[in-house]
Amino acid sequence: MPDPHEIHWFILAPSYWPLHIGPFGLSSSPSSSSSSSSTPSQREWESHCRIDFVGKMDYVYGPGRNHLFVPGPVNIPEPVIRAMNRNNEDYRSPAVPAMTKTLLEDVKKIFKTISGTPFLIPTTGTGAWESALTNTLSPGDRVISFLIGQFSLLWIDQQQRLGLDVDVIESDWGQGANLDIMASKLAADSRHTIKAICIVHNETATGVTNNLAKVRRILDDYRHPALLLVDGVSSICALDFRMDEWGVDVALTGSQKALSLPTGIGIVCASPKAMEASKTARSYRVFFDWKDYLKFYKMGTYWPYTPSIQLLYGLRAALDLIFEEGLDNVIARHTRLATATRLAVEAWGLKNCTQKEEWFSDTVTAVLVPPYIDSSEIVRRAWKRYNLSLGLGLNKVAGKVFRIGHLGNLNELQLLGCLSGVEMVLKDVGYPVKLGSGVGAAAAYLQNTTPLISSRI
Amino acid sequence: MPDPHEIHWFILAPSYWPLHIGPFGLSSSPSSSSSSSSTPSQREWESHCRIDFVGKMDYVYGPGRNHLFVPGPVNIPEPVIRAMNRNNEDYRSPAVPAMTKTLLEDVKKIFKTISGTPFLIPTTGTGAWESALTNTLSPGDRVISFLIGQFSLLWIDQQQRLGLDVDVIESDWGQGANLDIMASKLAADSRHTIKAICIVHNETATGVTNNLAKVRRILDDYRHPALLLVDGVSSICALDFRMDEWGVDVALTGSQKALSLPTGIGIVCASPKAMEASKTARSYRVFFDWKDYLKFYKMGTYWPYTPSIQLLYGLRAALDLIFEEGLDNVIARHTRLATATRLAVEAWGLKNCTQKEEWFSDTVTAVLVPPYIDSSEIVRRAWKRYNLSLGLGLNKVAGKVFRIGHLGNLNELQLLGCLSGVEMVLKDVGYPVKLGSGVGAAAAYLQNTTPLISSRI
Amino acid sequence: MPDPHEIHWFILAPSYWPLHIGPFGLSSSPSSSSSSSSTPSQREWESHCRIDFVGKMDYVYGPGRNHLFVPGPVNIPEPVIRAMNRNNEDYRSPAVPAMTKTLLEDVKKIFKTISGTPFLIPTTGTGAWESALTNTLSPGDRVISFLIGQFSLLWIDQQQRLGLDVDVIESDWGQGANLDIMASKLAADSRHTIKAICIVHNETATGVTNNLAKVRRILDDYRHPALLLVDGVSSICALDFRMDEWGVDVALTGSQKALSLPTGIGIVCASPKAMEASKTARSYRVFFDWKDYLKFYKMGTYWPYTPSIQLLYGLRAALDLIFEEGLDNVIARHTRLATATRLAVEAWGLKNCTQKEEWFSDTVTAVLVPPYIDSSEIVRRAWKRYNLSLGLGLNKVAGKVFRIGHLGNLNELQLLGCLSGVEMVLKDVGYPVKLGSGVGAAAAYLQNTTPLISSRI
Amino acid sequence: MPDPHEIHWFILAPSYWPLHIGPFGLSSSPSSSSSSSSTPSQREWESHCRIDFVGKMDYVYGPGRNHLFVPGPVNIPEPVIRAMNRNNEDYRSPAVPAMTKTLLEDVKKIFKTISGTPFLIPTTGTGAWESALTNTLSPGDRVISFLIGQFSLLWIDQQQRLGLDVDVIESDWGQGANLDIMASKLAADSRHTIKAICIVHNETATGVTNNLAKVRRILDDYRHPALLLVDGVSSICALDFRMDEWGVDVALTGSQKALSLPTGIGIVCASPKAMEASKTARSYRVFFDWKDYLKFYKMGTYWPYTPSIQLLYGLRAALDLIFEEGLDNVIARHTRLATATRLAVEAWGLKNCTQKEEWFSDTVTAVLVPPYIDSSEIVRRAWKRYNLSLGLGLNKVAGKVFRIGHLGNLNELQLLGCLSGVEMVLKDVGYPVKLGSGVGAAAAYLQNTTPLISSRI
Repeated sequence: MPDPHEIHWFILAPSYWPLHIGPFGLSSSPSSSSSSSSTPSQREWESHCRIDFVGKMDYVYGPGRNHLFVPGPVNIPEPVIRAMNRNNEDYRSPAVPAMTKTLLEDVKKIFKTISGTPFLIPTTGTGAWESALTNTLSPGDRVISFLIGQFSLLWIDQQQRLGLDVDVIESDWGQGANLDIMASKLAADSRHTIKAICIVHNETATGVTNNLAKVRRILDDYRHPALLLVDGVSSICALDFRMDEWGVDVALTGSQKALSLPTGIGIVCASPKAMEASKTARSYRVFFDWKDYLKFYKMGTYWPYTPSIQLLYGLRAALDLIFEEGLDNVIARHTRLATATRLAVEAWGLKNCTQKEEWFSDTVTAVLVPPYIDSSEIVRRAWKRYNLSLGLGLNKVAGKVFRIGHLGNLNELQLLGCLSGVEMVLKDVGYPVKLGSGVGAAAAYLQNTTPLISSRI
Repeated sequence: MPDPHEIHWFILAPSYWPLHIGPFGLSSSPSSSSSSSSTPSQREWESHCRIDFVGKMDYVYGPGRNHLFVPGPVNIPEPVIRAMNRNNEDYRSPAVPAMTKTLLEDVKKIFKTISGTPFLIPTTGTGAWESALTNTLSPGDRVISFLIGQFSLLWIDQQQRLGLDVDVIESDWGQGANLDIMASKLAADSRHTIKAICIVHNETATGVTNNLAKVRRILDDYRHPALLLVDGVSSICALDFRMDEWGVDVALTGSQKALSLPTGIGIVCASPKAMEASKTARSYRVFFDWKDYLKFYKMGTYWPYTPSIQLLYGLRAALDLIFEEGLDNVIARHTRLATATRLAVEAWGLKNCTQKEEWFSDTVTAVLVPPYIDSSEIVRRAWKRYNLSLGLGLNKVAGKVFRIGHLGNLNELQLLGCLSGVEMVLKDVGYPVKLGSGVGAAAAYLQNTTPLISSRI
Repeated sequence: MPDPHEIHWFILAPSYWPLHIGPFGLSSSPSSSSSSSSTPSQREWESHCRIDFVGKMDYVYGPGRNHLFVPGPVNIPEPVIRAMNRNNEDYRSPAVPAMTKTLLEDVKKIFKTISGTPFLIPTTGTGAWESALTNTLSPGDRVISFLIGQFSLLWIDQQQRLGLDVDVIESDWGQGANLDIMASKLAADSRHTIKAICIVHNETATGVTNNLAKVRRILDDYRHPALLLVDGVSSICALDFRMDEWGVDVALTGSQKALSLPTGIGIVCASPKAMEASKTARSYRVFFDWKDYLKFYKMGTYWPYTPSIQLLYGLRAALDLIFEEGLDNVIARHTRLATATRLAVEAWGLKNCTQKEEWFSDTVTAVLVPPYIDSSEIVRRAWKRYNLSLGLGLNKVAGKVFRIGHLGNLNELQLLGCLSGVEMVLKDVGYPVKLGSGVGAAAAYLQNTTPLISSRI
Repeated sequence: MPDPHEIHWFILAPSYWPLHIGPFGLSSSPSSSSSSSSTPSQREWESHCRIDFVGKMDYVYGPGRNHLFVPGPVNIPEPVIRAMNRNNEDYRSPAVPAMTKTLLEDVKKIFKTISGTPFLIPTTGTGAWESALTNTLSPGDRVISFLIGQFSLLWIDQQQRLGLDVDVIESDWGQGANLDIMASKLAADSRHTIKAICIVHNETATGVTNNLAKVRRILDDYRHPALLLVDGVSSICALDFRMDEWGVDVALTGSQKALSLPTGIGIVCASPKAMEASKTARSYRVFFDWKDYLKFYKMGTYWPYTPSIQLLYGLRAALDLIFEEGLDNVIARHTRLATATRLAVEAWGLKNCTQKEEWFSDTVTAVLVPPYIDSSEIVRRAWKRYNLSLGLGLNKVAGKVFRIGHLGNLNELQLLGCLSGVEMVLKDVGYPVKLGSGVGAAAAYLQNTTPLISSRI
């Protein structure tokens, strides 16, 4: 298999804007010369963008709010921004551990787990992936992994580079994980050489949600002891996720996704079985080692190294908001907004990249555009003209899809504003959409289903 | 003339929500007993609203952003919120006067004046009104004032209570100032007993914009020396306003309107003629006295009493944003968004409260509802179900209109989100609107007229 | 009596820094020419200060925190800054009145009143003064007022300009109000021509606290019905203040003083007797008229005009902090810090401007400097070298005293840092102080008296 | 060698407060039962501390500011807090790469490198360590490492756990790295089996600064090709650090140290030689892999995974402040404040944990207490009574030293406030200090050496 890494970055990077910023000068690196030709266009871009780099805190500002509809990072609620607006504190005073304890207790609720052990790691989703793998597996271990889009591909790349023996089950981009092939592999694995199933709950690149309950059922059918490791980056706290019920062994997400915080906390939760596995896993790890956290949990000081005070208070506020709304209401809101989005797409006469309804994602919708349109142009134009941030198509679907992220702290009118923007952009790039058609279809659904705001009844 | 004050408050207050908060207990005031009967419903409301009054910073929170479309206070841009996020400072250090000087110089630009003298008064629009009147007029002075809606009515009430002899020219609510009557009064006033014309540039209650250029022309035609005092609260920095060209003598606005700041600065600008008048005006005034400001301007310390440090930095940031976008681009954006709003109203089959196109306001649209609908129910429902804040109908038009404020730091997709919300609310309350019709009509206009964001070209 | 206004500003203004900003150009005003000679030095100053006026949010920044020890505006606690870090809201939604009601109820506690009626007016202390006078008195009314420093002088100036017949009782600056003279005037006033006693509780310019209990006793002794109007700007919420017990009729403060908020709310509280007086008072007033507030209190909408949403939330947070600490603990903390300050002054061998211990202020200490030192140089140097903001001497005591404000949200180590800074500045300007002497004396007292922080025991 | 990890945590954790929070319940972990006995005291503590865990954003609040003098995280300047007060953004829009490029260019300046390649990794100092090791070394590689305190010990622990063959050179805690032993080991290593020298520039636990210029000289003397890997966590941007001049191959710091930001960016800079080594290093790594960054640098999109938008803007503001003050002025300020601190310690009659002047640290001072005093009691009391946060003694020096961090955005009066607090605490715990002695000694030095604030001259 060719290195998937090499491919996708090439596709991803130049697609956003034609005159890019230009590379950072690697003065002593012999490989930098090839890209120096982009320097002129970079200057041109900079002068066009009127960016004053020093002392200016808002680059390429537009009037009014930015409409942030990438599938992460997502909008931060004002109360959470407020909670983080603070000086540093001594994290060894009694105050920080006291709050941390409440965070660890409460964060388990968003995984729907009682038996899990949570970790709040100062890292991104990529680091959370690494934490899941290195704490439970050893180099050479065989794992099953599903390639269904860019993010599952990146995780597979990580698995390979960490020395795992990855058994990749590939699907068309737009399809879910092929569980039949997984079943047959498990059936054949009477010696239990498969140590783990690695699966993304929601593939952010294509808007595909996998059926984790079914994965568990198949594992149980074959009484297979493989660990079930789940990337819940774009699902947890937005989609229905049941760690204990589905027997998930490691689940993880990032703070900048449905929790609606800044980037910076990788949230990982491990089942008792995963905790046992961590005692014998031989992957090298220190920063990501759960053992260090456990020592501090026992002592009641909680942190093996310095956490971000701001993110802790932010997480406290984010969880408070989620529990005040009710986690299941939050999930229902995601279903509602996603359904409305899909109705708009249908009204526009466009296709969902996700090929079957069973895989429809309630956090991100990837929209296929007709062949005569470059979807990157849609993303560019949305940002340049309407202050609307959409997601690019990545790798195999670059140029073919654009993505609407509808996760996190979001409501009906924000989404309808976005959809009306998408309509205008579609028209801008030559797609014959009837303005108002998608928004109207979405509104027809929302007007029937949106509940009163519970605090205002 | 009956006290207009008594009338409108009675109409305004109970219309927003059926179970109101209940009056503040005036324990020793004999007049408080009559309202004690509302206490039960207040408790009921409180428990319904789940408001925890102590230690909680977000009352009746809803998921996602609040969509703020009242005609003030309006949305504050994030860079301005940031600029105000600070501790107090000594306003007698050199730093604050240095910045104040730039503010005084720059704030004149939004009035389009070179000869005017600006004042940044720690007050609201009502205080700015009082500043305009007491510095230029004396008790007993005859002034002409136009009653065309709630805010012109309130200003008239103030003029009367300050002892002026107010010659009221009344129009139907929904019409502009009757300048023909003004002309005939001026014609008859050969002895120049009329000391001032008081006029709102934009009546916020009905969405009516008066023609100030024409007012000046009439004054000039009769060579009448009356001062021209203009309430520009919901116009300046949003509508085309030309203080010098139109010979406006005092113009004023409030920080929470088109400048998109918090409430707290009444911005008043006086012509040389008004400054002269202030030397002889005999109205009592101290807090609002321009003379105190002038003393400090001359000394270079600028502040006769303590300003809000936060609002000064906020105003600095707000002006920077406006000048970066370009004041005329800001005004064009208001015209564009207002036109789109009016197209939506038309598509819904509803009427604008403003009776003629010449008076259409580009900062607020008052929408008439059919007689079988209570417009207050629209406002209530928008807030309770869609987190959308609309303006109530006030006084004579209470229950008959709701208002969409489209001023300040706002863009196309924010407006379209609002319009889609209005459509759903209209359907909620039984008006047979086709969902998507208004948004589509607005989008058709906007898709043709919205420029690229200049910093992103 | 010569206009006191003219005198003091001249003294105040040029004393802070030698090269001042220069006057704001009043291009069309004939009176501006006289000061144009300062333009060159202004440019010089600007270039020296390296102020980039546009797009830069921090003028004349120094490393580390500014040490803010002017007697207002004072340091804002971080939780209050956080609470104010927010977008505007519709103040006519149920949320704002609901919170406002709690504010009105709670703000009465800091006045120690049950029978009073509070008003939260969008203005400064000067506006709060005007509200107290115009709502209770009529032009021509005779009032007794005490001239003991710059702020009592300014209030007297306001009283005169509002048309009151002011009977001024003057004392040396550094002495308290001469209550013996007041007593004799009351004794002589058998016809009750004296309508009000106007007194500052704490004269901020000299650090003198008047004995309000004694004022009440004298009024009672003579059974005199005069209203007792108290400026509590630099006392309420810091010094012991007992509105009901002392029979104060109107008391007032500003948000930027002991409440530790930004400037912007004038907080006025009126006794039932003052409320009665307001029904017949004939001073012109609209913006400051209590009647408008009362109408809205009864309806439960609370606001006659737009309040600052940010300040309301800030006030909520500020009151929460005060009640959590305990108002009497807050007052005790002010006594403790003030005592420590006075011990330091004594250790330095300097004199308190306040001539007798009975008048010592627990919110501000004015320190007399030897004749060979210009106290303004101390203030300048503290700011330029140590990032320490001290208060200037004003008017009669300009150049003779500098002031240390020790009010608001402040603790022991902040004060000791300030005192060590003052020591260094004293040495800088040639006063032979032993470094560590004042800080040591203050610390000796504080080390004996500072309680444990109650939330950390 | 026994696992150093096991030892120190046991010593560190219980020392801060007697009634600790209690462990996080590991419900399914068999090892959790042993610590359940602490539950009662935890409850007791919680009730004592009056912590309301839900909906409250300030735990164990005290009046006034917290005085933060731990050696990290340190005080964040207000302009940096402001810059971070923002919503998320799409990091794939042109704005974020444009700013990132300026950050990469500017961050090199704080390392004083032209040839280095910087990485801004979403991690802590511990992760930055791991990045330095795994990108340049392979399991089994021999490295020299110096054990001189808790943080060098933790790094050694990491080196061992990553599979390196660590040749530990141990010194007494309070001494610097023993370079003579290093020299002899290099002399003996003719086959160049030593792949790297790992050294902390500044050992935060003991306040010891190592002489990196001398390390380079020795390496050069022996013409030894070992890489020089430097932990500059508590030095870079505060102490004089010269990456290029000293031939440092990897240098690293964390955002929460001298840069005065929140935790969350591990800043790593690699020499061309280190970059070459990274091409062949066989340590497993993905999250920390420099290669991924380089790919994105070349493309001009800069981020292999999601960065914290807030920290990027914060870093921009932090660098702007540092360059405005001047990096060498920042360093001189650290020297000045550290010298003042040491003079205070001397005046108190206490000893510096650092045994020789050549090792004195300008970012942290560890103060030895007499045997009859538990230094942890000093830290506890400082926090409980004076809102002063000091650093604990760690591991071998637990109970024996307390630490004063004097790094980051800090000025003279902040330090003097801290020192006066330390004096009071010393007296509280029974040490016979003369109050004012240390502050006075420090002030005597500072009054002679503090420059005028350059923006205010």
